[in-house]
Amino acid sequence: MISPDVTGASNTNVPSVGPSRPKNIIIMIGDGMGPAYTTAYRYYKDNPETEEIEQTVFDRLLVGMSSTYPASVSGYVTDSAASATALATGFKSYNGAISVDIEKRPLPTLMEKAKSLGLATGIAVTSQVNHATPAAFLVHNESRNNYIDIAQAYIDTDADVILGGGQQYFPASLLTQFTEKGYQHITEFTQLDSITTPKVLGLFADVQLPWAINDNRSHKLSKMTQKAIDLLSQNQQGFVLLVEGSLIDWAGHSNDIATAMGEMDEFAAAIEVVEQFVRQSKDTLVVITADHNTGGLSVGANDKYEWKPEVLSRVKASPDEIANQAIANEQWQTVVTELIGFTPSDTELTALDNARLQGNEALTIALRKIIDVHSNTGWTSGGHTAVDVQVFSAGPGARLFGGHQDNTDIANKVFSLLPESAVKQ
Amino acid sequence: MISPDVTGASNTNVPSVGPSRPKNIIIMIGDGMGPAYTTAYRYYKDNPETEEIEQTVFDRLLVGMSSTYPASVSGYVTDSAASATALATGFKSYNGAISVDIEKRPLPTLMEKAKSLGLATGIAVTSQVNHATPAAFLVHNESRNNYIDIAQAYIDTDADVILGGGQQYFPASLLTQFTEKGYQHITEFTQLDSITTPKVLGLFADVQLPWAINDNRSHKLSKMTQKAIDLLSQNQQGFVLLVEGSLIDWAGHSNDIATAMGEMDEFAAAIEVVEQFVRQSKDTLVVITADHNTGGLSVGANDKYEWKPEVLSRVKASPDEIANQAIANEQWQTVVTELIGFTPSDTELTALDNARLQGNEALTIALRKIIDVHSNTGWTSGGHTAVDVQVFSAGPGARLFGGHQDNTDIANKVFSLLPESAVKQ
Repeated sequence: MISPDVTGASNTNVPSVGPSRPKNIIIMIGDGMGPAYTTAYRYYKDNPETEEIEQTVFDRLLVGMSSTYPASVSGYVTDSAASATALATGFKSYNGAISVDIEKRPLPTLMEKAKSLGLATGIAVTSQVNHATPAAFLVHNESRNNYIDIAQAYIDTDADVILGGGQQYFPASLLTQFTEKGYQHITEFTQLDSITTPKVLGLFADVQLPWAINDNRSHKLSKMTQKAIDLLSQNQQGFVLLVEGSLIDWAGHSNDIATAMGEMDEFAAAIEVVEQFVRQSKDTLVVITADHNTGGLSVGANDKYEWKPEVLSRVKASPDEIANQAIANEQWQTVVTELIGFTPSDTELTALDNARLQGNEALTIALRKIIDVHSNTGWTSGGHTAVDVQVFSAGPGARLFGGHQDNTDIANKVFSLLPESAVKQ
Repeated sequence: MISPDVTGASNTNVPSVGPSRPKNIIIMIGDGMGPAYTTAYRYYKDNPETEEIEQTVFDRLLVGMSSTYPASVSGYVTDSAASATALATGFKSYNGAISVDIEKRPLPTLMEKAKSLGLATGIAVTSQVNHATPAAFLVHNESRNNYIDIAQAYIDTDADVILGGGQQYFPASLLTQFTEKGYQHITEFTQLDSITTPKVLGLFADVQLPWAINDNRSHKLSKMTQKAIDLLSQNQQGFVLLVEGSLIDWAGHSNDIATAMGEMDEFAAAIEVVEQFVRQSKDTLVVITADHNTGGLSVGANDKYEWKPEVLSRVKASPDEIANQAIANEQWQTVVTELIGFTPSDTELTALDNARLQGNEALTIALRKIIDVHSNTGWTSGGHTAVDVQVFSAGPGARLFGGHQDNTDIANKVFSLLPESAVKQ
């Protein structure tokens, strides 16, 4: 029985909390994942053998939407740092801020509050672990670009699980400090299986992890997420975990739809791992959102009423990887046709030939453009746009995230759901 | 107290209905109004004098989102006809279909069902009244382009209120049939005040109504909506009303952001009229959505992290009207600068000068482009895109529309809320 609701929307600010607080809270951020990405992903995953269009995990879990604008000093279009600051602290700040306010004073974060309450904390991301989004959950810095300082500051966070890329930002001296603090430090993905207790610092790439589309769909983010849950669950008080599908945004910045769909699949698979845990544990809340939209992606373009995800399903490698192989191989047309999944037209082959002579970057851009044309995908920017993003949730408290809200509201609701304190410090 | 919800999303298909069915149902469609439009509108309406960004009526009423894809024969990107068919009947059909299935057989509509139950019905739109969206709610036709046939078929709908544009599709012979059936036929907007009882056929323009931005923000759609509510409320059984902000889509097709924001304001004002009625009547459900997204609008573009709605607030007329006046006036630079609200650069003035010599269309396009550049607005298409659209609702049954759903689900839920029958015929 569904009771009628005269007001309709359930958008409140910081609501009163029912008796069933979650023990564990998992925040998942699809970096750059505006509404066009989740829509595109549905059709990308559609089984053409069936008349029905299958629902995705995003469809199952949608509850609301969120505005993403930064502090007014930065206008209406946020970067990942200001948005992560909003999501981690409940406060607006300037673009570039890592959990500091517009006066550059530190803002208390969700992870700090969780630690002070005795909870375990962790992050699992596909970028370097000290990239803007995870950084804003763990530390404070006046600029997201201070990667070395941010990595150094991680030593004082007491985070129990740190998984992702970023070896180049962690010099030997810093790694020694981590091991002295009791961290297990690993660099090979296969070592993850051998880790059975916190703490762990797993850095599996020099900077970001490989594109999912080039990684045999090995779903590294799902495996990191599952391991993080297993390790953090050992804390009887509960835990707060941040999972980020970081590279959706990177593919969006490059206007690379095939690679973006691979990253969406990586993130969706990790959400399904969490969805399963939420169902089983019954005391875990998951809140999933995006920090902003990237690229002005549009599902259909150029005055044509069509979008062709089947073109993307046939792409076997990222355009930059296809370009690498095409440049290294005299039979480059065969390589491109095999990996791109369709035969380019003669005009397109001529354009690719010219681009190939200019090198990897030019060929990569030319390949992306051809994929856009064949799939009829549109873009307006190599940066971000201000469109509202979706909010997905399940578990105790999930309904608080229904309707429209601001990204700072999301943080304030999560703060209100932490154990033993309904008010953030 | 908000009870926790393990599943989180409330997306069901046709759910069981509580005891409080609505007496009246108002469906409001922002044609082409994808998520970027409602986001852009929030910032367009933002009061720069305050630090806070004010919520819009869309923010207050958001409950969920909807997919819009047509029957598979038409791919993933819908037109207004297939989407209106889905919203009016609960069935997917091909692009162009007016409430017929892919075999061109008529599909029972919400308005027909309402009539069969003794309810009053009406439409109030800013396009011609026989345009695709209202047509699919009232009649059946194999093609949206058969405007004359569609207008003719309106005579058999028994609709109590028909308000909008479209005089050119209603010849004198047809108007005679309407008056013989008891319709009051009016063509001047000021006559609306004198109408105190149904039935009424009000056709206030040859085709569509004037752009809101050129119409002194007279909010004609609000006035038609209020009148429709007043007239339809005279039926003690209740009513079903369709209100469409039709021209949001038309501005989107033209990639005309200033005019689109004017139409959004027109539609938002009409929603506020309905919101007020829903609050007062307590037995009225309003469901608001878009049929699809138009133009691939993006709020920010060109690699820049900015969008400047204050540029749009200063635009005093639609680009086509500015072009009209600039072509008729030797002092065209003064006219343009006054009406566009900023001083174009010398390069831009040269481009405008060249365009002016080519005539109205070229100058209109050049003006739109300059407004895009100054506001940093992006577009990818003169057509539609497939991104999911939002769903807004208030009143008895509003919660049924929460979470993710398909546009056919929206219709099926509305059918289930009609009085005395939980199942559509």
